[in-house]
Amino acid sequence: MTNNLVDTRIVDNALEACGVKNMEDATIRDITRVVNSVEATTGTRFIRMEMGVPGLPPPEEGTRAEIKALEAGVAQFYPMLEGDPGLKEEAARFVKNFMDVDVRPEGIIPTVGSMQACFAAFMLVTACRKERDTVLFLDPGFPVQKNQMRVIGKPYAAFDLHDYRGERLGKKIEEYLEGGRVAAILYSNPNNPAWVCLAGEELAMIGELADKHDAIVLEDLAYFGMDARVDLSRPGEPPFQPTVGRYAKNFITIISASKVFSYAGQRLGLACISDALYHRHHDDLQERFGGDGTIGYTFVNRLIYTLSSGTTHSVQHAARAILEAANEGRLDIAERTREYARRARAVKELLLARGFRLVYDQDLGQPLADGFYFTFTDPGTSGGELTRRLLYYGVSAIPLRDAGSTRPGVRACVSRLGLERVGELADRLARFRLDYPPSGEQNGLFTNIP
Amino acid sequence: MTNNLVDTRIVDNALEACGVKNMEDATIRDITRVVNSVEATTGTRFIRMEMGVPGLPPPEEGTRAEIKALEAGVAQFYPMLEGDPGLKEEAARFVKNFMDVDVRPEGIIPTVGSMQACFAAFMLVTACRKERDTVLFLDPGFPVQKNQMRVIGKPYAAFDLHDYRGERLGKKIEEYLEGGRVAAILYSNPNNPAWVCLAGEELAMIGELADKHDAIVLEDLAYFGMDARVDLSRPGEPPFQPTVGRYAKNFITIISASKVFSYAGQRLGLACISDALYHRHHDDLQERFGGDGTIGYTFVNRLIYTLSSGTTHSVQHAARAILEAANEGRLDIAERTREYARRARAVKELLLARGFRLVYDQDLGQPLADGFYFTFTDPGTSGGELTRRLLYYGVSAIPLRDAGSTRPGVRACVSRLGLERVGELADRLARFRLDYPPSGEQNGLFTNIP
Repeated sequence: MTNNLVDTRIVDNALEACGVKNMEDATIRDITRVVNSVEATTGTRFIRMEMGVPGLPPPEEGTRAEIKALEAGVAQFYPMLEGDPGLKEEAARFVKNFMDVDVRPEGIIPTVGSMQACFAAFMLVTACRKERDTVLFLDPGFPVQKNQMRVIGKPYAAFDLHDYRGERLGKKIEEYLEGGRVAAILYSNPNNPAWVCLAGEELAMIGELADKHDAIVLEDLAYFGMDARVDLSRPGEPPFQPTVGRYAKNFITIISASKVFSYAGQRLGLACISDALYHRHHDDLQERFGGDGTIGYTFVNRLIYTLSSGTTHSVQHAARAILEAANEGRLDIAERTREYARRARAVKELLLARGFRLVYDQDLGQPLADGFYFTFTDPGTSGGELTRRLLYYGVSAIPLRDAGSTRPGVRACVSRLGLERVGELADRLARFRLDYPPSGEQNGLFTNIP
Repeated sequence: MTNNLVDTRIVDNALEACGVKNMEDATIRDITRVVNSVEATTGTRFIRMEMGVPGLPPPEEGTRAEIKALEAGVAQFYPMLEGDPGLKEEAARFVKNFMDVDVRPEGIIPTVGSMQACFAAFMLVTACRKERDTVLFLDPGFPVQKNQMRVIGKPYAAFDLHDYRGERLGKKIEEYLEGGRVAAILYSNPNNPAWVCLAGEELAMIGELADKHDAIVLEDLAYFGMDARVDLSRPGEPPFQPTVGRYAKNFITIISASKVFSYAGQRLGLACISDALYHRHHDDLQERFGGDGTIGYTFVNRLIYTLSSGTTHSVQHAARAILEAANEGRLDIAERTREYARRARAVKELLLARGFRLVYDQDLGQPLADGFYFTFTDPGTSGGELTRRLLYYGVSAIPLRDAGSTRPGVRACVSRLGLERVGELADRLARFRLDYPPSGEQNGLFTNIP
């Protein structure tokens, strides 16, 4: 190996110093620490694709509204636990305009990021009936959600979507539901890390099966509007963000402001509890948390109250202004995220031209959308080993295993990779290939170009 | 009864409509809903003392810094889980300047209000050793903290401080500690609702006993600097905020920005984990939450991460600027809260002159400080009944039982009661006394004037 950009010993030492013993187990935060350290030691600027940090500036509507609210003195006053009424109204309009789903404003609750919404939802759904304590994860997914289940102390089940698309998905889910312990089904759409998007027919299947077996669907829309194949430019007009809300009665859809609105720093999510669920009462829920035992009351007055007493006041004003701008067509959601798709397309083409392959490459026969994340592999190499090798050439990504994927490969995020550095990436991949020629498995290059 | 300000039927109907069946069980939020409804029906403006909402504007240093951070674009970037390094440094200086305690910056973690700090701390301390799952509450206290224990699913024990001050406190605490199930001791200082302040000798006893029995002290400083007898005007000079940190090795002190800095809307607390605790490892903790099993790592990387992924970015900038101003003597902590003490003194004098009595009236022989809250009773009347009767005269407070007090009486908060309305309050109390003359128990008026 002679074409590497960084001394391999420096990389290997940094991995050891950061406590990474088995590369397959390396987490996002491990790789971030390693790259920070190697960059500091060598002065080499990495092409960083390990972390999903929003790479676009936030909408002015948000920061302007937040500044105005601070000037008006909102810092003094406790936020309402259930959220600012104006925000709730605007959010219900947003859900109608961009998802074509009706949820009453009372059921839409701002939270300290999607993270809090998800934590509270997990506590809630696993306590509605004593005998149903398990959440079924459609993997691969965001690993921290599994940590949340561990912190809460409740079990989860999981399977890899890759093997069960279309009709097979319904059968597989029903096997779990028939077991009788599944309280809820969680998935992210598009998902992290694979960028798989469930199709309408799959969402319909999930929704109908959940209703049939009286389970709750937890839909994580962390990447709202970021499937570049679905153009959300026009409020109130199709196409709409695909959602289980069009098919299920019992759902909690969680929208994050972090990615689509680049508002990650301020921590704002919206938990949208379906009308059918909001006033539903469970004796076990009442016994567990007290209060009136309804889902809406428990979420707001027992969980959000005890977790943080609501969501930062000024941020609720920002969210209201951003959603209002989107509802009125002044803020183009699709345009905001097209930049990520352009980057992903450019990087994927480079990788495929150099003999890498996509891991998750299609949704029911359609090529995957270009977006925030994608997954790739160098056939014959494990995800951990590929991660290590890429580091030698100044490129960072994370092994897939952490995200519940059973496949060898890595996840890359294009959020921090401006198009101006694509040439540099091409050069680094070329060097990589000089040292690690393609394996025999790589005949048929380009077959999976999106 | 003829001197009432509000039709008694309207009050009684509102209580029924808001689901209050037993007045003793009425919570803050119940009374708030009832008063909002009665005010809307009758047009009578109540003297509202039921809720502890900060009544002073926030420091300009905070809002200015937050606006500047938003203008610089922090909304885009995830906050660091462990907190902004500058904030951590400034907070450590603050702890030294105003509490005379050394805590390393790494151990000071911003949270989404004291509420989140407390939730995470409860999860943490009850998981360090399997056989120690109980938190001992020194009552009366903030009822939501008991709800937090219920949400977490761990037991608590409690006793009323009123009966155990001084030497007796140590004996009582040791009884619990010797039982072997107490993981931590929680108290608030000054406390809500009684405004009892534990004396230095009592804090020393708590700290020494906790260390001796290897329990952790959770010190809730929700009302930092608000004991008007302790003048915190000068950073780095005595007197200091009384704290167990001067006596104990194993403590987590939680400082809230809500009251002392009127910053409740933005949700900011600081969890200060003692140096001795931060790197302490427990096998059971590691088994429960994974990671490296140390207290600091678990708090930040398992709990704060899964609860909300950190604290709103711009608010961390506000906190840093506020603490810096306090450290440099530009912001006078004592002066900020003297207004509450002036109000409390005026209202207490009125009440005592009309034959009401203070419930919690002294700290080891010293009169209680004037501050945010105080407690009073009308001898011979229960706290619930007194709450109802006061409502007839346009005055709101809450029964003490919700706060874990065994005594008949109510809690009043002066935060929303400007001095300009004291005359009105005098008139309403005079009307009250015409309809409800003092009982025989009320000889010796004025004996407990502070």
